[in-house]
Amino acid sequence: MTDHSSIRLVIHGGAGTIERSKLTAEREQAYRQVLAQSLIAGYTVLAAGGSSIDAVIAAIVVMEDSPLFNAGKGSVFSNAGRNELDASIMDGSMRMAGAVAAVTTIRNPIRAAHAVMTKSEHVMLMGQGAETFAAEQGLEIVDPSYFYTQYRWDQLQKAIANERVLRDHDADSDIPLPSNDEKRGTVGAVALDHYGNLAAGTSTGGLTNKRFGRVGDSPIIGAGTYADNRSVAVSATGTGEIFIRAAAAFNTAAQVRLQRISIAEAADNTLAEIAAIGGDGGLIVLDATGNFAMRFSTKGMFRGTIGDDGIAWTSVFSEAETPVKHFAVSFP
Amino acid sequence: MTDHSSIRLVIHGGAGTIERSKLTAEREQAYRQVLAQSLIAGYTVLAAGGSSIDAVIAAIVVMEDSPLFNAGKGSVFSNAGRNELDASIMDGSMRMAGAVAAVTTIRNPIRAAHAVMTKSEHVMLMGQGAETFAAEQGLEIVDPSYFYTQYRWDQLQKAIANERVLRDHDADSDIPLPSNDEKRGTVGAVALDHYGNLAAGTSTGGLTNKRFGRVGDSPIIGAGTYADNRSVAVSATGTGEIFIRAAAAFNTAAQVRLQRISIAEAADNTLAEIAAIGGDGGLIVLDATGNFAMRFSTKGMFRGTIGDDGIAWTSVFSEAETPVKHFAVSFP
Repeated sequence: MTDHSSIRLVIHGGAGTIERSKLTAEREQAYRQVLAQSLIAGYTVLAAGGSSIDAVIAAIVVMEDSPLFNAGKGSVFSNAGRNELDASIMDGSMRMAGAVAAVTTIRNPIRAAHAVMTKSEHVMLMGQGAETFAAEQGLEIVDPSYFYTQYRWDQLQKAIANERVLRDHDADSDIPLPSNDEKRGTVGAVALDHYGNLAAGTSTGGLTNKRFGRVGDSPIIGAGTYADNRSVAVSATGTGEIFIRAAAAFNTAAQVRLQRISIAEAADNTLAEIAAIGGDGGLIVLDATGNFAMRFSTKGMFRGTIGDDGIAWTSVFSEAETPVKHFAVSFP
Repeated sequence: MTDHSSIRLVIHGGAGTIERSKLTAEREQAYRQVLAQSLIAGYTVLAAGGSSIDAVIAAIVVMEDSPLFNAGKGSVFSNAGRNELDASIMDGSMRMAGAVAAVTTIRNPIRAAHAVMTKSEHVMLMGQGAETFAAEQGLEIVDPSYFYTQYRWDQLQKAIANERVLRDHDADSDIPLPSNDEKRGTVGAVALDHYGNLAAGTSTGGLTNKRFGRVGDSPIIGAGTYADNRSVAVSATGTGEIFIRAAAAFNTAAQVRLQRISIAEAADNTLAEIAAIGGDGGLIVLDATGNFAMRFSTKGMFRGTIGDDGIAWTSVFSEAETPVKHFAVSFP
C-alpha cells in the first residue's frame, strides 16, 4: 500500500447535540449499524477498483434509504407538509459537479445530482424541472408518500404548533423533539479511489417546517460540498445558512491549497469562522494522500471511516471517544 | 478624502463577445447611458451617506428595469417560455446574504434577495415560495408578461429551432442571434460606503432556452456574489456552471485574504482557473480601501465605475480602451 494508491472513505450522518445520556444503547447501535453499512457499501466499490464518485453515491444511498437520517427516506417535512430533498456531488479530478434542490419524488437525490453532473450541461437543477430530468434519465421515481415517516410528521406538527423553524439535530431547542434520544441530520461522504481521485457528496431533507422554498447549504457547490484533487474533498453539515455565508466547503479547500496547512486545522478555522457568525456543525475532509479529518463544533456527529483494510470504524459523540470497530459488517 | 472613507461603486452588465465592429454607435450609446444612470443611482446613495448595500440595490435596479440587459425587464426566456430570474446580494460587514432563484413575478429580484437577507432567517429562497415571501414583504409583484420583450422571445424561438441552450452574450455561437450588434448579460454591482463596508449583488435572467429549473451562478453565494470586509466584494458574470464549479466569487476573495495578492491578480487567477475547465466571463472586484478591478476573459464586458468625484466612467470593449466620461449624467 502506497500513500497515493490507498483508498479511503469518510462519512457523516449529521451533527448536533447528541448526548450519550440521551441516546439509548439500542438507538446508538441502530445508527452505528447503518453507518457501518454505508461504509462497507462505499468500500466495496473502492476495493473493486471503482471510482470515488461511485463510492460516494453507494455510501450515501445507504443513508438515504434508512429512515434514521434526515435524507431520502426519513427526511423532515416542510411547512407545506412535503419532503423537499436537496443533494449535491462533485468529482475532484476535473471539478465536475451536480446538484438538485427541492425535489419531492426522486428516491435517491444523490443519484439525481450525479445525473445532472454527467448527463446535463448544467450543475444545479431544482424542483419539478429536476424531477422531470431525473425521470428522463431513468432514475427511480417514488410517490411523495414514500418519504413519510410518522416521527417526522409528528415533528412537523410540533414545530407548526410552536411556529418555529427547527433545525433537525437541535435537541436542546426550546421545542422538545418527540423523543430526545433521536438526533439526526444531513448525510455526506468523501472518498479517495485507487487512481488518486477525490469525490464528495451531501444529501439532506432540510429543516423541519421550512417555508418559501428555502435552500440550505447541502445542494450548494462550495458550501455543502466541494472536491478538488489539488486540495481536498469536503462534505458539511450544520446551520445551513451560515455554512453558505462562509462558503464552508470551498473555504476549507482553499485554505489547504493556498496556505498548505493541515486539513484538520483548515476545518477548525472554517468552523471557527462559522461560530463567529452564529453557526455550528461539522465537516469531513479528505486529501489525495488519504489524510482525513472529521471535525465538528457540536456535541456530536454521526460519522465513520474505512480504509484499505476494510474495517469500518464509527463514532457518534466527542472527538475523544474511541471509535467502534465493525468486524462482522466489515467482512460479510 | 482618505482611503478608508472614499466611496466607490463598480458595475457590470455582462461579459461576452462584444465587438466594436458589430455594435452600432446608437446601441453603444444606449448601453453606456444605462450604465451611467446605474452608476449615478448608486453614487447618489453613497454620496448621501447611504450604505453600500443600498447603493448596490439602486445600481442594479436601474439595469433590471432596462430592457437592454439580461436581468429583470429584458430577461431571456426559458424553454418553457417563461422568464425565470435569479439574484443574490451580500453585505461584507457581517457577511449577511440573501438570494432568490427562478422567480417569475418579482419586478426587481435584487430587492427580493435583500428582503431574504434582512427579513427572513434564510439565505436562499426559490420559485413560488420566494414569490410568496416577496409579496408578503410588500415588494412589487408584476404579471409575468411584464418581462416580455419581442427580442428575447425571438431569441427563444431561434434557440428552440436549433435545440440548443444559448448563453446570452455568446454572439459567435453557431446560432446567430437576431441581431449581432446586441450582446447582453447578467448585471452586477460592488460598492464601498463611507463607513468602509463592502457589498456585492448580482441579478440575471439566466440562459435562453434553459430547461429543468436550471440555476446558474448568479444566485449562488460564493459563485456569482461574495462580500467580506476582510478582503473584497465580487460580482461575476459568465459561463454560470463553470463559475459555480470554481466558486468564482469566494475563490477571488479567498486569494486576497489568504495570499495578500492584488485584487486584479486574484481575479485573473480565478479567470485562468475558469478557462482551464472550459469557461469564460468577467469579475468586478472592490476592496475596503477603494481599490477595484474589472477583469474579463471575453472580448468585452459592459462595465463602469464612479468614485468620490461623482464622475461616471463606462467601458464596453477591451481592457486597453479609454473609458468614456459621463459629465452630463454625472451632475444632473
